[in-house]
Amino acid sequence: MITLEQSTHLPCEYKYPVHSYSFVISMYSRLFRLPSTTRRTFHTLSALNMPANHRKVTIIGSGPAGHTAAIYLARANLEPTMFEGMMANGFAPGGQLTTTTDVENFPGFPEGVLGGELMDKLRAQSERFGTEIITETISKVDLSSRPFKLWREGNEEESEPTDTSDALVFSTGASAKRMFLPGEDKYWQNGISACAVCDGAVPIFRKKPLAVIGGGDSAAEEAIYLTKYASHVYVLVRRDQLRASKVMADRLLKHPKVTVLFNTQATSTHGDGSLLNALTIKSTISGEETKLDVNGLFYAIGHEPATALVKGQIELDNEGYILTQPGSSLTSIEGFFAAGDVQDKRYRQAITSAGSGCMAALDAERWLSEHEATE
Amino acid sequence: MITLEQSTHLPCEYKYPVHSYSFVISMYSRLFRLPSTTRRTFHTLSALNMPANHRKVTIIGSGPAGHTAAIYLARANLEPTMFEGMMANGFAPGGQLTTTTDVENFPGFPEGVLGGELMDKLRAQSERFGTEIITETISKVDLSSRPFKLWREGNEEESEPTDTSDALVFSTGASAKRMFLPGEDKYWQNGISACAVCDGAVPIFRKKPLAVIGGGDSAAEEAIYLTKYASHVYVLVRRDQLRASKVMADRLLKHPKVTVLFNTQATSTHGDGSLLNALTIKSTISGEETKLDVNGLFYAIGHEPATALVKGQIELDNEGYILTQPGSSLTSIEGFFAAGDVQDKRYRQAITSAGSGCMAALDAERWLSEHEATE
Repeated sequence: MITLEQSTHLPCEYKYPVHSYSFVISMYSRLFRLPSTTRRTFHTLSALNMPANHRKVTIIGSGPAGHTAAIYLARANLEPTMFEGMMANGFAPGGQLTTTTDVENFPGFPEGVLGGELMDKLRAQSERFGTEIITETISKVDLSSRPFKLWREGNEEESEPTDTSDALVFSTGASAKRMFLPGEDKYWQNGISACAVCDGAVPIFRKKPLAVIGGGDSAAEEAIYLTKYASHVYVLVRRDQLRASKVMADRLLKHPKVTVLFNTQATSTHGDGSLLNALTIKSTISGEETKLDVNGLFYAIGHEPATALVKGQIELDNEGYILTQPGSSLTSIEGFFAAGDVQDKRYRQAITSAGSGCMAALDAERWLSEHEATE
Repeated sequence: MITLEQSTHLPCEYKYPVHSYSFVISMYSRLFRLPSTTRRTFHTLSALNMPANHRKVTIIGSGPAGHTAAIYLARANLEPTMFEGMMANGFAPGGQLTTTTDVENFPGFPEGVLGGELMDKLRAQSERFGTEIITETISKVDLSSRPFKLWREGNEEESEPTDTSDALVFSTGASAKRMFLPGEDKYWQNGISACAVCDGAVPIFRKKPLAVIGGGDSAAEEAIYLTKYASHVYVLVRRDQLRASKVMADRLLKHPKVTVLFNTQATSTHGDGSLLNALTIKSTISGEETKLDVNGLFYAIGHEPATALVKGQIELDNEGYILTQPGSSLTSIEGFFAAGDVQDKRYRQAITSAGSGCMAALDAERWLSEHEATE
């Protein structure tokens, strides 16, 4: 993977001054709410005189992938730092799981576990082995040379980075696209979901009519998956045809438990105060609105990987996911390892994500030890 | 992955007679300890008159990969059956983790969890969602046509299989090679291990002299990994040179905390009754024996994937691991999905194994649903 010639290029002048002035200033400025101009002056001064906070390995993202990487890196004595984010990409630290309720399919929890509780456990485990967790968002990176340069939110305009790192584990995740219909916040995870595999088996959906929004392959797949539990599945398609492949479209249209409603949009959600029980749907042709009794609404209108930070600097696929060498966390940039949903559009599960975080940690550990040995 | 033409070949005459005579006979025979000839007669009779126990999807192997697959398949209403094995490949149901004590790196358990306890939890979770778990070992398979044919231990000589399955999730695992030196059973997991990444960070090894047995790349890698914790690492090599690649060998030989002892074999282990504290080592040239004070012994003489069952029927790599399409569980045989250590010689962790079990379940689910749709 790495040739000897390449690995000798790793600079070593920035080794280990873990808490520099820059970090201390950033902490105090935030504590005393100094205006950003003042902060910027401090930072500029500190940047002139001090090296940035340099680390061997930094993790960006705090979902199951990030924390599993942290556990492995910390146990390997690499003193990882994690930027868990401050509502990064709209999520609290912990990522997508913090927006769910019961998680029934994470192995090790036969009675199920709350999404937030699971993430608390992972965070505690990362910290137990010595991971430094910083509740700030990295908002700018420069991957053009090593050490990689990182800027924390509020410092993007500084010329000097706030932090640098020899290796990066990038696990910023992805988010399901949603429509945020009236009432949606109330019934999110109480009838509204964006993952049939995660939530389809939940009792509230069993033998009930359900709706899927979307017209592509994944909408077709989610709808067919849901027929295992549902009494009937309505697929709401905005246009007059499916975007799904012919095979998937045929399968969907022929399924006895599926009705595809073309030229149809959902406009609001209704419930009994605790659970969803209907949608208002509207014809995109006549504009006429009707009520559709369903106990579940599943979004299947795509996902958005959180790769804005690295776009243009690393190889992404046509949907914006980071390209990894399959079966590993290696990317187009040496020393940059990707894990979790930000590089996985196929499985997208907490447990696959955790597994890939472990892979990224072991890949990073091996890469760093190769560098050390050749320095 | 699967063309429509291929998928229509799936026979459907064997659908869903879940508990056939064969199964009932097997249960009763074992309950009343009938001699195997009697059992065989019963089985032959039943095989003549009845179809075998047919299932949509069967899991062989009961480690983290198998159980995670079971959780996902059961939640997808596919009614999976798992053969957890009866000391299959020398392991109790649950696999390699049942031979360990504390597991500190499985995410979700900040205080650590006992290996056996973790596997009990996974088993309970599989059963909660309806997995049928059979404590028998599959000892013969025929993958030449679908449904795949399976024979339970004791029935290998029958012409008819005891069980058949449309899809298979194969997660039989692997085992680290060990020397079983005098005293080894007493100190296994109390100073003796076969996984530096899993156990190296444990307090009993910190700042202590340790030994690694092996002369290949993985021995070099494990030894270098252990220098993070150890006061010194001795590498015992039977021959007069290392088998490791030149880069790894150089790195090992130059490391200030490593001493490579060539022409050296361990012959017995010693301890204080609860923890290992020394080895007897022997020169393979002079035959002279000396004592080496070490608090840890790590085997790095390779792993043995449990693939005897399928050898010659499916594509394996040169070390006997099942070849999967990287980043998936797909193998050279359609409908046969591999997960866990039986197809992973790179990461070999409980969490990566669990992740790959989820992948196998989702791959199998998709494959089965494509078949159903085209039947």
